[in-house]
Amino acid sequence: MFVAPLIERKRDGKPLTAEEWSALVAAFTADRVPDYQMAALLMAVVFRGLERPELAALTDAMLASGQRLDFGDWPLPRVGKHSTGGVGDKVSLVLAPLVAASGVAVPLIAGRGLAHTGGTVDKLESIPGFRTTLSLAEIQQQVQRLGCALVGQSTDIAPADRRLYALRDVTGTVEALPLIAASIMSKKLAEGLNALVLDVTYGAGAFLPAPAQALDLASTMIALGEDRGCPTTALLTAMDRPLGRACGNALETEEAILALRGEGPPDLMEVTYALGVEMLLAAGVEKTTTKAKKKLENTLASGLAAEKFEQIIEAQGGNPRIVDDPGVLPQAQVVEVYSARRTGIVARVEPRPIGRAIVAMGGGRARVEDTVDPSVGFVISVKPGARVLGGEPIASVYARDAAGAQLGCEALARAIVIEDRVNEEPLPLVSHRVTRAGVEQLNPVPRPPGRPAARK
Amino acid sequence: MFVAPLIERKRDGKPLTAEEWSALVAAFTADRVPDYQMAALLMAVVFRGLERPELAALTDAMLASGQRLDFGDWPLPRVGKHSTGGVGDKVSLVLAPLVAASGVAVPLIAGRGLAHTGGTVDKLESIPGFRTTLSLAEIQQQVQRLGCALVGQSTDIAPADRRLYALRDVTGTVEALPLIAASIMSKKLAEGLNALVLDVTYGAGAFLPAPAQALDLASTMIALGEDRGCPTTALLTAMDRPLGRACGNALETEEAILALRGEGPPDLMEVTYALGVEMLLAAGVEKTTTKAKKKLENTLASGLAAEKFEQIIEAQGGNPRIVDDPGVLPQAQVVEVYSARRTGIVARVEPRPIGRAIVAMGGGRARVEDTVDPSVGFVISVKPGARVLGGEPIASVYARDAAGAQLGCEALARAIVIEDRVNEEPLPLVSHRVTRAGVEQLNPVPRPPGRPAARK
Repeated sequence: MFVAPLIERKRDGKPLTAEEWSALVAAFTADRVPDYQMAALLMAVVFRGLERPELAALTDAMLASGQRLDFGDWPLPRVGKHSTGGVGDKVSLVLAPLVAASGVAVPLIAGRGLAHTGGTVDKLESIPGFRTTLSLAEIQQQVQRLGCALVGQSTDIAPADRRLYALRDVTGTVEALPLIAASIMSKKLAEGLNALVLDVTYGAGAFLPAPAQALDLASTMIALGEDRGCPTTALLTAMDRPLGRACGNALETEEAILALRGEGPPDLMEVTYALGVEMLLAAGVEKTTTKAKKKLENTLASGLAAEKFEQIIEAQGGNPRIVDDPGVLPQAQVVEVYSARRTGIVARVEPRPIGRAIVAMGGGRARVEDTVDPSVGFVISVKPGARVLGGEPIASVYARDAAGAQLGCEALARAIVIEDRVNEEPLPLVSHRVTRAGVEQLNPVPRPPGRPAARK
Repeated sequence: MFVAPLIERKRDGKPLTAEEWSALVAAFTADRVPDYQMAALLMAVVFRGLERPELAALTDAMLASGQRLDFGDWPLPRVGKHSTGGVGDKVSLVLAPLVAASGVAVPLIAGRGLAHTGGTVDKLESIPGFRTTLSLAEIQQQVQRLGCALVGQSTDIAPADRRLYALRDVTGTVEALPLIAASIMSKKLAEGLNALVLDVTYGAGAFLPAPAQALDLASTMIALGEDRGCPTTALLTAMDRPLGRACGNALETEEAILALRGEGPPDLMEVTYALGVEMLLAAGVEKTTTKAKKKLENTLASGLAAEKFEQIIEAQGGNPRIVDDPGVLPQAQVVEVYSARRTGIVARVEPRPIGRAIVAMGGGRARVEDTVDPSVGFVISVKPGARVLGGEPIASVYARDAAGAQLGCEALARAIVIEDRVNEEPLPLVSHRVTRAGVEQLNPVPRPPGRPAARK
C-alpha cells in the first residue's frame, strides 16, 4: 500500500475516503503499513481532525478487524461502560461488579494505561494471577454465568484498535477527539450490548480538558453508537483532580475493594452511583433514578457486590483473598510520607503531574514494550478546598526505590498547590447528561479561572 | 530516553531546548528512539515549526553525529552546491564537473530522491558500476586529485540526518522549512567548504511552492551557514515545470551528459550557468559575472567538463563509456509515445504528477527499504507556452511493463494541460539572488493565477 500520499493529503487538510481508511486499517493490522507511517498519519489527524464519514469508516474498519461477542437470545440485558480516562479513576472496578450483582450483565472490555492516565486492565493485573486475556468463548461463558467479565482487548477484538492504541500512547497522539471516539467505540460495539453508558471526563487531567470538547466527544460517540444500533448515553464527570485518594495500579485496586465493602471515598461513590443508575435505567431493570440508586445501594450494603468481585477474580484465575485482605496485592519497596509544604488551603491537586510521575516511577509505559510495576503510586488524602498545616502529612508516595520516591515527592510538590486564599472552585463531579436527544446540565460548571489551564 | 512528553510539547506549540534536541538526535542515531516516535515528532514539527535556537541545535546535532571533510592547508578553493529539489533537476551532474574543470573544487555530498523529487545519488547510480559510497579519505583524495567527488551521504557524514531523511521521505514530513534547512546544512557544513551556493526552488513542484517560503528557506540556510563560518549565497529558481526534458534517473543522466557535450536544453543551461557563476565568484577565481560566465562557457566548449565527468565516473568505478555512448545506461523495457490530447497551447506541465508517477512506476521509493529502477521516467519535449496539435507526439514514457506505461500516460494526461488560451506566465528560471546582506530581485515573478496551486 502506498501510504505517503495519504499522509500528505491528511496533513494538507483534505479527507481520505472511507475506502482508503478501510484499506489502511486492514493493511496496518496485517503489518503491511509500518508504525512510523501510521504515527505520522495519526499526528496529522491530531492537527487536522477527521470528517464524519472518515470517523465512521475508521471505527467500522477497526471493529471489522476483529470479532464481536454474540449472546444470541440470552435474556439478561447487557450494558457496557467506558470512561475516557483520568488519574485515580478506578470506577470500573467498583461499578462492573456492583451493576452485575444488581441484575444487569456487564461484559467489560477495558483498556491499558494511556499517556498519564491509568488503565483498568493494568489495575486488574495488579491482582496476583488475574488473567485479563480471555477468549471470546470464555468471556461469553463467564458473562452468562456471573453476569460480568473484566478483560483486556484480546487479539480477537478490534486488533487494529489495539495496535493503534499502543502506538498512540507513545507518540503524543492520544489527545485527538476522533481517535479517542473511534478507539472507544470500536471496542464497545464489539461487546454485544443492549446499551452503553459513557463516562466522559474533562478538566486538566482529562485528554480533552475543555467542557466543550468533552461534550463534542460525548455527542460524537453517541452518534457512532446509535447509528450502529446501540443506544448510548454519557455523563460528563470531573477530572480536574484525581478521583478518590489512590493513584497507581495496586493502590487503586485496593481502594476499589474498600469501595465494594462500603468504605469508598465519597467522590468515587458519587460518580460510581451516577453511572450505575444510568446503566440500570438503560437496561430497563429500573424505571426511576431514585429506585435505581436505591437498588445499587442495597446491593453494595448486602455485600453482594464485593462477593461478585470475588467470584470474578476467582473465575479469571486471580487470588480472591485480596477482597478480604488487600495486603495480598503487590507492595511497594519504599513508602514515603509527603507533608504539606506550607499552611493554607489546597487550591488544586493537578492530575497530570501525578499521572506522569507514576509512569516515570515505573507504573506506566514510556514505550510500547515496557512492563508496568503495579506497586508504585500515591495516596493523596487532601482534596481542593481542604485547609492544611505546614508539615502535616497529606499524602504517601509508593516507590521502587529512593530515587523513585524522590521523583514522586517532587511531583506532589508540583501537583498539590497550597495558597492563602482560593478563588477557584473545583468542577462538579457530574455536570452533564448527554443523550441522542441533547445535553442536560445537571450541575453548574464554574467559570475557568483567569490562568491558562495547566496541562503538564 | 522518555520521548513522548517531548512530542507532546512540540505538538502543543512549545519549543524543546537545545539540549533536548541534541539528546534526541543522539538517541535516535543510536537506535534508542524508535522511528514511530521520531515520525510523530517530525509531523508535529511540520505543523508547529522550529524556533531559531531549536533549528541551530538540530543542525549542529546532525552535523556532530558524524565526521567532516578536512582539506587542511590544501590551497584550491572548495565551493559546495545544493538544490532544494525538483523534477527533472539534473543540474548537479552538469555543474559539478563543469566548475571543477574551471578550477574550483566541488566535494559534492548529494541526496537521494525525496517524495516526488529525484535525487542526484539515484541518478548517479544509474551509471553501471558507479560507487556513490566512498570513505571520507577516498572523497578527500579524489577531490584533491580531480577537483570533484560525487557521493551520497556515507555513514560517516551526518548519519542522523541520513536516517531522518529516509524517514521523512515516507511519512509526509518532507515539506517543512526547518527540517529541509537542517537536513541540507548538516550535510553541506560537513563538506569542508570555503563557500556554499544554494539553488532554492519554488513553484508547484518544489517542496515549498510559494516564493515567500523559498526566500525564507534561503535566508534560514544562509544564516545557518554564515553563523558557522561558511559564506553562503542562494539563487531562487523555477520549479513550476520540470527542468530540461528528461525526468527519471537514467534519462536525466543521459541529458546531463548531452549538456556537458554542449547539447543541453536551454533552461537547464541557464540555471547551470547562473549557479556556476555564483560558485566561481564565491571561490574568488573570477571577479565579475561576465568573466565567470565566459570561463564556464569556454570550459564546456573545450570538452574539459565532459572529460572531467568521465574522469570522475572512472575514479568512482563507473563505466566511463557512457559519456560517449549513453546507450550503455539502463534501458526501459517499454517505451510509449504520448501524443497531445488536443490542439492548443501548453498551459502547464505540472511537476508533481510526473514525480509521483516515476515513484509509482518503480523509479522512486514508497518505503525506506524500496529499491529504485533507474530506467523508468519521461522525456517531455514541450514547455509551457508551446503550441501543439492534437495527436502530435509531445512526450515518451519509459516503463518496466505495459501497466507502468499506462500509469505514465495517465500521469502525463494530468500533468500536461493544454488550453485554447493561456493567461499564466511560467516563472522566470532565476528570479532572486539572496545573500547575508539581503534579497536582490533579478527577474519579475508573475502574479499567481487565480486558482489554488496544484500540489498533487
